[in-house]
Amino acid sequence: MIKNIDISDARFDLKNGAGSDAVHKDPQYAYAVTHLRDEQGISGTGLAFTLGEGNDLVCRAAKFYAETLRGQDIETVMHGFGDTFRKLSNEQQFRWLGPHKGVVHLGLAAVTNACYDLWAKKCGVPLWKLLISLSPEAIVNTLDLSYLEDVLTREEAIAMLTEAAETAASRMAVLEQGYPGYDTSVGWFNYDDEKVRDNCKRALEQGFGAMKLKVGSADPQRDIRRANIVRDTVGDNVKVMLDANQQWNLPQAISICNELKAMHPYWVEEPTHPDDVFAHVTLAKAIAPVKLALGEHVPNRIIFKNYLQSGCAGFMQVDAVRVGGVSEFITISLLCKKFGVPVVPHVGDMGQLHQHLVLFNHIAMGHEALFLEHIPHLKEHFLHPVKIENGVYVTPQEPGSSCDLKNHV
Amino acid sequence: MIKNIDISDARFDLKNGAGSDAVHKDPQYAYAVTHLRDEQGISGTGLAFTLGEGNDLVCRAAKFYAETLRGQDIETVMHGFGDTFRKLSNEQQFRWLGPHKGVVHLGLAAVTNACYDLWAKKCGVPLWKLLISLSPEAIVNTLDLSYLEDVLTREEAIAMLTEAAETAASRMAVLEQGYPGYDTSVGWFNYDDEKVRDNCKRALEQGFGAMKLKVGSADPQRDIRRANIVRDTVGDNVKVMLDANQQWNLPQAISICNELKAMHPYWVEEPTHPDDVFAHVTLAKAIAPVKLALGEHVPNRIIFKNYLQSGCAGFMQVDAVRVGGVSEFITISLLCKKFGVPVVPHVGDMGQLHQHLVLFNHIAMGHEALFLEHIPHLKEHFLHPVKIENGVYVTPQEPGSSCDLKNHV
Repeated sequence: MIKNIDISDARFDLKNGAGSDAVHKDPQYAYAVTHLRDEQGISGTGLAFTLGEGNDLVCRAAKFYAETLRGQDIETVMHGFGDTFRKLSNEQQFRWLGPHKGVVHLGLAAVTNACYDLWAKKCGVPLWKLLISLSPEAIVNTLDLSYLEDVLTREEAIAMLTEAAETAASRMAVLEQGYPGYDTSVGWFNYDDEKVRDNCKRALEQGFGAMKLKVGSADPQRDIRRANIVRDTVGDNVKVMLDANQQWNLPQAISICNELKAMHPYWVEEPTHPDDVFAHVTLAKAIAPVKLALGEHVPNRIIFKNYLQSGCAGFMQVDAVRVGGVSEFITISLLCKKFGVPVVPHVGDMGQLHQHLVLFNHIAMGHEALFLEHIPHLKEHFLHPVKIENGVYVTPQEPGSSCDLKNHV
Repeated sequence: MIKNIDISDARFDLKNGAGSDAVHKDPQYAYAVTHLRDEQGISGTGLAFTLGEGNDLVCRAAKFYAETLRGQDIETVMHGFGDTFRKLSNEQQFRWLGPHKGVVHLGLAAVTNACYDLWAKKCGVPLWKLLISLSPEAIVNTLDLSYLEDVLTREEAIAMLTEAAETAASRMAVLEQGYPGYDTSVGWFNYDDEKVRDNCKRALEQGFGAMKLKVGSADPQRDIRRANIVRDTVGDNVKVMLDANQQWNLPQAISICNELKAMHPYWVEEPTHPDDVFAHVTLAKAIAPVKLALGEHVPNRIIFKNYLQSGCAGFMQVDAVRVGGVSEFITISLLCKKFGVPVVPHVGDMGQLHQHLVLFNHIAMGHEALFLEHIPHLKEHFLHPVKIENGVYVTPQEPGSSCDLKNHV
């Protein structure tokens, strides 16, 4: 029974340009941390990620949702979590502030994630293990598929998971091998050329086969120079991704991406405004065969559905601490599977939660084990920080979703 | 110079089912009220509208934006308001909470609207009069056209306004005649059949030629019965609009709208989720010639652009107390003009602010003077409540944007 509810506002300063991009030049990393504690003292921790200012608003929204769970048994809640999610996300006055986006949806993410963490801890297993043990029906019962009826029914979702389950055993090897990571920190926006070069070399030494550079400079020549530095340093066999963080308008994006084609980016990420489906469609056609990655700022399953229907996305970067938590992450992963688009999460959680979710996506849903973003900047603050060895995530074994923070337990 | 900043949380209970719809069955009407007071004691009032719960979050967001204006001269601010809006709406940490949607964007709306109100009061004229007196360049300087470059450049916006200005004199007659209203309150969701019938009769007596009914019942037969009651009561020459407030999924919407066709609705409003552009496209084709009205929950110019590009919208219901305020309302109205779609605002402000904006849209932009929603429920709370006579809005003459509330000045 959920007895105590505690929400805390955790903010962490970043050093020396870490985390900077074309739009967010001086971010903090911050979490609205939801704790749901049961009568046995087991505490579920759920995160929503922000960049500092306004994190308190997300905490207040989380509080509003969390209070509705007081006194409830977590296993009962989780057995019908799809209904709970639908009810909470459509609370009739609060809904006006979205619907299903912005501060309120971030608050819901924190609460949803705390529910999954508490559930796994109560079962005494890591979240990935709990999730892959569930039947297709049990998984689908945790999802809210409303407003998706035109492309994904409940029956179809169950059928997809049932089909994937038949071959799941063949994908269990990932648990031993570890899920591949990519290094997102070689080229933050504010890093100078020398630091980018050094970081690329270090990433290679650490076994990464893929890494990311921030672009979107006022002077496109800076982007091109930096991109070439990365390519020259890592060679042709390493995947290099470019991330503009929404900085460009459509005409700019077409022009600059066509110049950046020459260094063969694996993807171009968030080229323009995250709400602009049609601009992404035009851009994807204009710069093919270079693919687009997007989703970091896409707030809910409905807009993901539209992006998938539009055919413009090469990779989907849904983030479970940005959409409405684990439940909606799984829903969106199912949509992506149906449309044949790989899920490569953005990790506002620094990979803590997503290391569980990509294992589930691969094993139980049949998604390719492509790679998971790795951001090292908050490791000292987590109780069980992710472990990367030779460029792969070591499968976590602690019960829960690995989201406990040292000073916010 | 903006000297004092005060944000207040104003909530009003509604009586006997007023304001109820299929999704929001028990709303309050609430405003995050921003006051910007200059050294002469002139106070600009700006509203953002919510349904109660969480209105305090919007107030806090408004406070954050408003503080950036302290010490600034309002006329200087307004001469380059497009830049101010771009800067505020892209504040790099707060932006994460949107971008350009949800609580933060509602907060920005309240502040933006207070700026316009203060500006007009300082000029000593009603807002509509100030706006129609501005040159095309001066208007465009108040707009943020970023992320619209693919469909509307600054030069094109100026050219559109310049062209419309040539015929503006011919549209000034609306100031004498009054802008037509429509009655949105004949059929709130919770009203019984008898009350709907009585309200329709009263609306006819009051001179309204158009009115709206809430649909989206769990039982579609209730919708059909109520719609027929309205049509039978008002006859064939009155426009009847149906509003589902996002209640249906796409398959439901197609099925029910095709049944409702028989009573010849003038439009079907918010049939499904406001983020689902593609569902609206499919629906619009499936139920033609019945037209869709949407926009009440569309948060920013970029998504409006997508809706316009998609061709699915018959009427656009942008609301200046929902998008980022008057500035973004004008931007969206320009987009609608370019795409040939009428603007029929949703009036979270009860028409107080929009009575000014539709006059501007008609006179200075050449939009048709179709009609403006009329909601009577908060009249006693406004200092200068809108006046409706014989079904038309009497042109307001008090300085400012008519948004001052009696107990929140």
